[in-house]
Amino acid sequence: MPKYVYNFSEGDKDQKDLLGGKGANLAEMTKLGLPVPPGFTISTDACRAYLKDGHEPEELRVQVTKALRQIEETLGRTLGDPADPLLMSVRSGAKFSMPGMMETVLNVGLNDQSVGGLAEVSGSERFAWDSYRRLVQMFGKTVLDIDGDLFLNAHDALKDKKGVTDDLDLDAADLKELTEQFKGIVADATGKPFPQAPRDQLDLAIEAVFNSWNTERAAIYRRRERIPHDLGTAVNVQTMVFGNMGETSGTGVCFTRDPSTGHSGVYGDYLMNAQGEDVVAGIRNTSPLSALEEQDKVSYDELRALMRKLETHYRDLCDIEFTIERGKLWMLQTRVGKRTAAAAFRIATQLVDEGLITKDEALMRVTGEQLTQLMFPQFDPDAKPQSLARGMAASPGAAVGAIVFDNAAAEAAAAAGTKCILVRRETNPDDLPGMVAAEGVLTARGGKTSHAAVVARGMGKTCVCGAEALEIDAAAKTMTVGGTVYREGDVIAIDGMTGDVFLGDIAVKDSPVTAYLAEGLEAGYAACQDEDTKELVQSVDRIMSHADSKRRLRVRANADTPEDSTRALAFGAEGIGLCRTEHMFLGARKVYIENLILAEEGSAERQAALDALEPLQRQDFVDMLTIMDGKPMTVRLIDPPLHEFLQDLVSLEVKVAVAKATGSVDPADEKMLSAVRRMHEANPMLGLRGVRLGLYLPGLFGMQMRALVEAAAELKKAGKDPRPEIMVPLVGSIRELQIIREEGEKIIAEVAAEYGVELDIAIGAMIELPRAAVTAEDLAHEADFFSFGTNDLTQTTWGFSRDDVEGVFFPEYIEHGVFGVSPFETIDVHGVGRIVEIGVSHARQTKPAIKLGVCGEHGGDPESVHFFDQVGLDYVSCSPFRVPVARLEAGRATVEAGA
Amino acid sequence: MPKYVYNFSEGDKDQKDLLGGKGANLAEMTKLGLPVPPGFTISTDACRAYLKDGHEPEELRVQVTKALRQIEETLGRTLGDPADPLLMSVRSGAKFSMPGMMETVLNVGLNDQSVGGLAEVSGSERFAWDSYRRLVQMFGKTVLDIDGDLFLNAHDALKDKKGVTDDLDLDAADLKELTEQFKGIVADATGKPFPQAPRDQLDLAIEAVFNSWNTERAAIYRRRERIPHDLGTAVNVQTMVFGNMGETSGTGVCFTRDPSTGHSGVYGDYLMNAQGEDVVAGIRNTSPLSALEEQDKVSYDELRALMRKLETHYRDLCDIEFTIERGKLWMLQTRVGKRTAAAAFRIATQLVDEGLITKDEALMRVTGEQLTQLMFPQFDPDAKPQSLARGMAASPGAAVGAIVFDNAAAEAAAAAGTKCILVRRETNPDDLPGMVAAEGVLTARGGKTSHAAVVARGMGKTCVCGAEALEIDAAAKTMTVGGTVYREGDVIAIDGMTGDVFLGDIAVKDSPVTAYLAEGLEAGYAACQDEDTKELVQSVDRIMSHADSKRRLRVRANADTPEDSTRALAFGAEGIGLCRTEHMFLGARKVYIENLILAEEGSAERQAALDALEPLQRQDFVDMLTIMDGKPMTVRLIDPPLHEFLQDLVSLEVKVAVAKATGSVDPADEKMLSAVRRMHEANPMLGLRGVRLGLYLPGLFGMQMRALVEAAAELKKAGKDPRPEIMVPLVGSIRELQIIREEGEKIIAEVAAEYGVELDIAIGAMIELPRAAVTAEDLAHEADFFSFGTNDLTQTTWGFSRDDVEGVFFPEYIEHGVFGVSPFETIDVHGVGRIVEIGVSHARQTKPAIKLGVCGEHGGDPESVHFFDQVGLDYVSCSPFRVPVARLEAGRATVEAGA
Repeated sequence: MPKYVYNFSEGDKDQKDLLGGKGANLAEMTKLGLPVPPGFTISTDACRAYLKDGHEPEELRVQVTKALRQIEETLGRTLGDPADPLLMSVRSGAKFSMPGMMETVLNVGLNDQSVGGLAEVSGSERFAWDSYRRLVQMFGKTVLDIDGDLFLNAHDALKDKKGVTDDLDLDAADLKELTEQFKGIVADATGKPFPQAPRDQLDLAIEAVFNSWNTERAAIYRRRERIPHDLGTAVNVQTMVFGNMGETSGTGVCFTRDPSTGHSGVYGDYLMNAQGEDVVAGIRNTSPLSALEEQDKVSYDELRALMRKLETHYRDLCDIEFTIERGKLWMLQTRVGKRTAAAAFRIATQLVDEGLITKDEALMRVTGEQLTQLMFPQFDPDAKPQSLARGMAASPGAAVGAIVFDNAAAEAAAAAGTKCILVRRETNPDDLPGMVAAEGVLTARGGKTSHAAVVARGMGKTCVCGAEALEIDAAAKTMTVGGTVYREGDVIAIDGMTGDVFLGDIAVKDSPVTAYLAEGLEAGYAACQDEDTKELVQSVDRIMSHADSKRRLRVRANADTPEDSTRALAFGAEGIGLCRTEHMFLGARKVYIENLILAEEGSAERQAALDALEPLQRQDFVDMLTIMDGKPMTVRLIDPPLHEFLQDLVSLEVKVAVAKATGSVDPADEKMLSAVRRMHEANPMLGLRGVRLGLYLPGLFGMQMRALVEAAAELKKAGKDPRPEIMVPLVGSIRELQIIREEGEKIIAEVAAEYGVELDIAIGAMIELPRAAVTAEDLAHEADFFSFGTNDLTQTTWGFSRDDVEGVFFPEYIEHGVFGVSPFETIDVHGVGRIVEIGVSHARQTKPAIKLGVCGEHGGDPESVHFFDQVGLDYVSCSPFRVPVARLEAGRATVEAGA
Repeated sequence: MPKYVYNFSEGDKDQKDLLGGKGANLAEMTKLGLPVPPGFTISTDACRAYLKDGHEPEELRVQVTKALRQIEETLGRTLGDPADPLLMSVRSGAKFSMPGMMETVLNVGLNDQSVGGLAEVSGSERFAWDSYRRLVQMFGKTVLDIDGDLFLNAHDALKDKKGVTDDLDLDAADLKELTEQFKGIVADATGKPFPQAPRDQLDLAIEAVFNSWNTERAAIYRRRERIPHDLGTAVNVQTMVFGNMGETSGTGVCFTRDPSTGHSGVYGDYLMNAQGEDVVAGIRNTSPLSALEEQDKVSYDELRALMRKLETHYRDLCDIEFTIERGKLWMLQTRVGKRTAAAAFRIATQLVDEGLITKDEALMRVTGEQLTQLMFPQFDPDAKPQSLARGMAASPGAAVGAIVFDNAAAEAAAAAGTKCILVRRETNPDDLPGMVAAEGVLTARGGKTSHAAVVARGMGKTCVCGAEALEIDAAAKTMTVGGTVYREGDVIAIDGMTGDVFLGDIAVKDSPVTAYLAEGLEAGYAACQDEDTKELVQSVDRIMSHADSKRRLRVRANADTPEDSTRALAFGAEGIGLCRTEHMFLGARKVYIENLILAEEGSAERQAALDALEPLQRQDFVDMLTIMDGKPMTVRLIDPPLHEFLQDLVSLEVKVAVAKATGSVDPADEKMLSAVRRMHEANPMLGLRGVRLGLYLPGLFGMQMRALVEAAAELKKAGKDPRPEIMVPLVGSIRELQIIREEGEKIIAEVAAEYGVELDIAIGAMIELPRAAVTAEDLAHEADFFSFGTNDLTQTTWGFSRDDVEGVFFPEYIEHGVFGVSPFETIDVHGVGRIVEIGVSHARQTKPAIKLGVCGEHGGDPESVHFFDQVGLDYVSCSPFRVPVARLEAGRATVEAGA
């Protein structure tokens, strides 16, 4: 017979799969001997069996009866006993927390008889009827699926009738009347009276919890949070204890350390003569936990002792719910507590210092995302800005600017050099130009997966969304908050880390953590305003050092300029994984690329353009190689479609057509138009780019390779240690690589002879096409290294271009659960990841020691870094700012892998 | 000791890997007891060893000595004997024929002494010196790498000096003088005298053949023909026999049946007193083989008997080279002969009737490419057009039209409804618009892999290229042939099957084979003008019937209209594998799609547009399902980006801008422009299309599915057997499919209830993204079938769009050997094919019996059909015209697989 029911004394905290998070921790506390109201957990197995068969497994009823009997025997009371009723709570508890998603029923066991017994035992008729009224309401709504408004309306009507506004002003008789009305509502809605049998109440409540797993709301939540749908939930059935039994009762929540700063000490809130839901609802003001010391020193001391015991046991910050019933302390829940990014780092090092955890464990207690949060600039903490509203922290950063309500205003502001914040009720694809032009985005509607949130994160723009207090009238160009009207041009500030919206300009402060990461510990300390922050910087330093000492993956940066390279080194990059050369042909050099494109193949003009570019490009490389002395620097040959260097087709067509219609066309424009038309592609992403360009436009790649090789030779001759690597982009077949490689090897040999130096320059390919990955065992014959370009690889594997789709249908796709997060943010392990794995294994098949890396923003994404470590890449490369995150996560990945 | 040298008596025809094609067939003839001049073959192993080590393997020298000794002993003569020299030829012979690519040296063994012996023995001093002069010339050029023009110039100078124009007018003394001059050229160029030692000559010649494998010319040829580079060539060393020893000598080529019609009988050419190279060079006119009967009946009869023996032995048409030396017949070479398409079919059935081969073998003797050739319309065979020139048959078909020289003229002609042929020296990407507008393309330069050829094949346009007799002056708009000038507007005709260029209009006749395939045997016969053609139609019918009886793959057609569907059935399609629905929204219906796009989500306008479209779409499906009664019909939900239904952005921008500049803008244009801008995508191929559209534009897919399901229900109710299948395009993830499937299943259930019929309608996905293939084990949970869309899959796997790249750099890519043929013509087995294999195995992992097919033109490409059979697909689907080819190749694939 399968075991479905576990007494709290039977489980432990590691059984979250079976007992859910809440149940596992209740078991753990019970095992530790803490005062936990007795109860039992119905396992997730039972839920899965129920959901599969459509009814409760038979054995479940029997096992519940036995577990209940045991509690009744221990306490000497029986469920719903008319004289002294044992009451139970029934709560869901899945493996992963799904706050507010599932069901709770309290006071199970009360009925027309036992309410009298409860009144007797508690000495309070009002308490008893209030408890019964709550049961009928909760049960009606969550178990019997009756519209909750029916109960609320009846409640309000009664208060109106009595002429009171506060629930507390209703007396026992009122509540009895209300209970009768509630029972009437139940009878009307279901055609049956409110179930009086305590055991029926219990069984129905359990079934309701099972069913709550499959509500649409819960399914959507799971899709968004990427929680598997087949886990099911556990059900916790626990003896009720009451914090609302008078002045010697109360309820509270507490933390074993400060979850916002990491300070050790006593943190929490307490509310006398109250139930948990009153604390949560925020109707009454709570006192700090320290107030309990004066009110009930015995319970307070016991609680402090238990907190310490729990923290020592869990070896981490604990978050605790407790109730005191007539002077007796009960522990209702505990779990490892959530904390801010700063607290995470500080607590981790504190626990190391206290000997509770190892350095490896400390590393696992912080995340790259937390480090990122600490790295963003923040509003000056000394500023005392006027808070306007609070929304969701949708995309980090701190942005200040003038309010604009539409694209036109945003673009005009940007053109005038004025910073602006785009304010919309919600955004849609039409708002993209405005989002691009603005410093940040603020919306009144929508959550973390709304269009605004998804797109802003993709763009790296600060975003606060769902600030519901804002009334936005785009037509009138007004934003109204609490009756005050703000107009276009009024300056506001939004905090993408907290969701705060402020009025007026606020100074933005650079992060001391960033100062430390970029310039070292002393610079970090110097940027701190207080000791807490210094302690934080020190904690980050200690954890980063440990991460660096552990990690297997090397971390490089993507850098195209000497400035970027310097920055990358400062952030700890061990080389450049991607130097894009197309950026070197902008500005004054653009004309040469234009000439190159416009000239005929083999013509003197084309050669002249190449000859003019070579020394400029050589100097670019000399500058960067000098900075990167002794470290690898991967240079990608020119990649983008050539028309990117020419004028925009539409504007030029319009210009020429209008000129014609009005009488005077510039022949130069006409000539250029014909070239632009010729180079125009319907799908430039899938056109003449990368290696195709190198083969199509002979001399271009050669010029670049010669410039790079000569730069290296020059430095080598000067006694430096340049380590360039040549990377061929968009390779799909071995022949492409072979041809460029032959040319490259010839150039290397020639230049080496010319300068009289030895040059060992690796030539490799960027793997960004599925074909390259599936034929990697071929390509490997001609490559010294591969670097996965996961951005393009994502585009080709999914068949969508980021520019075209991310702002258009990604929000809907996330909503529909097609993906949990944009595959351009975190690598799509299941799809694109498989292609990467195929590429890695095929490549190693031919050349076991081939150097494999990844360049592109996935290289700095925490989850993706773990994947790249797992598949055995040698390095990741990302933008300089993300290098510290990659270092941290690479260290964590090593620890996670058990190495 | 490895064996490198094989006497002709040691091998056989199946050892082509080891002995090369020529060597294997020489061995086979020797084994059969035919009169083959004795000799031996040096294996490809020896060549590979040589190429690897850079020198001849030591054992080779020893083995050559032994083999040579054996021949010398048999013949009683020794190599280069001054009195009666044994002379040898040294010829390359690789596994695959590489005509003109490699080297031959004749008369090895002649030197200053033995030339006298040869004169003595042959009784002709002139013959002896001519032979020596040829040796020095060939040896100098091919073995010693001396510029061939040096010899030709000396030869011409001597003729000038003697005042003669014909080589034959030079006498023995002249040729002796010429030989001395040639030896001087050799000495000057190499600093060493011409090698006199016969054995040195032999060894150097052998080494030269080895080296010829790796010339650039040979490497390029192999890349184009997709012959592996590591095979190496064999070397055939054979006793010389001479057809130029007077009136009782001669040389010829013959075929055991007519290679152009398939008629049995005697076919060949003979040239008295001549050597093989004289026949090839075409300097003298040959006689038909029958002339030999009068001249030398004994040899003629012997030859006839040997021809029959060879054909019976090879069980196929044989192509034979022979020489008669003073009345003695020698067989120099044989191989299975090339033949025309018509001959291939007729010979195959003849051989079945003669009991020489089985029906399965007959099926393997013809190809889909040959069938295609027979299906194209051809010029009226009774027309006697004036031939202008001949080029390469680059893309099949028969096109007639007015000469145009540029895009503008081609487009103007097309606009005026005048058929035209684009005539260019060679084409490049700029000529694409003209190629699109013209009926056919004719170029003076370039081969089968030139831009014109590759692009025309991609477009299905008739193309003749490399017609070198044409002088084309595009600026002057003239085409000059043999002094006659043709101008724009002159009508010409080009035959893409033969490469012929004719002057004037020629009637084009539909193919009787096509008439048979589309309408049956009687219709085929009726379209024939002679008995030969009837016999051909009958042969095709017999082979097609056998193919149909053998094949495992089902063949469906891609058809979007009732007309296409009828045509597809006529060609033998067993269902529709792809019905594209976007074509159903053109013309008068376009306005509804416009409304759909322009209306707001959830608006009445949008619903109105959907409501208007549904009955129209339903009628489309009723019409097609009626035709396809009882056969599956896969309907793909709308796929292309929506802006394809709107006006072109550039034209509209120009229109509005010009209107603004000149004073009067139509507000409707402005409104439309804003919509077109909003829908514009940088890369529409990677944008909002396929299933994304279905999710983005709620109601669109639903409308289509309802129309289809209702059409099926209506027909079912009327007693028909409709078999629609719903195909979701561009699926990348299981959720996308799930959502559409849920909607589809709901509609099916609703309609079934409404009409009171049972409906069993499969829902599946088109696999055209790498992600779909690598996650097929996931998708299979939600799919009843998969159809690989290999066109899009090729685009995403390679990361290029056919429209953008095929005309731009494919010719160069083929030239560079990146691929041998456009991957859009024949599936790229190594890359895209692997992705297909992954998709198939992953899908079958989840659902072993899932139906798998392919739609897109690869489904009708011969080579690709074999691949699809191999990987175990259930069906292929292609355009109706290609259905017979697919049927034939599917049958061949089954036989090939040994099933």
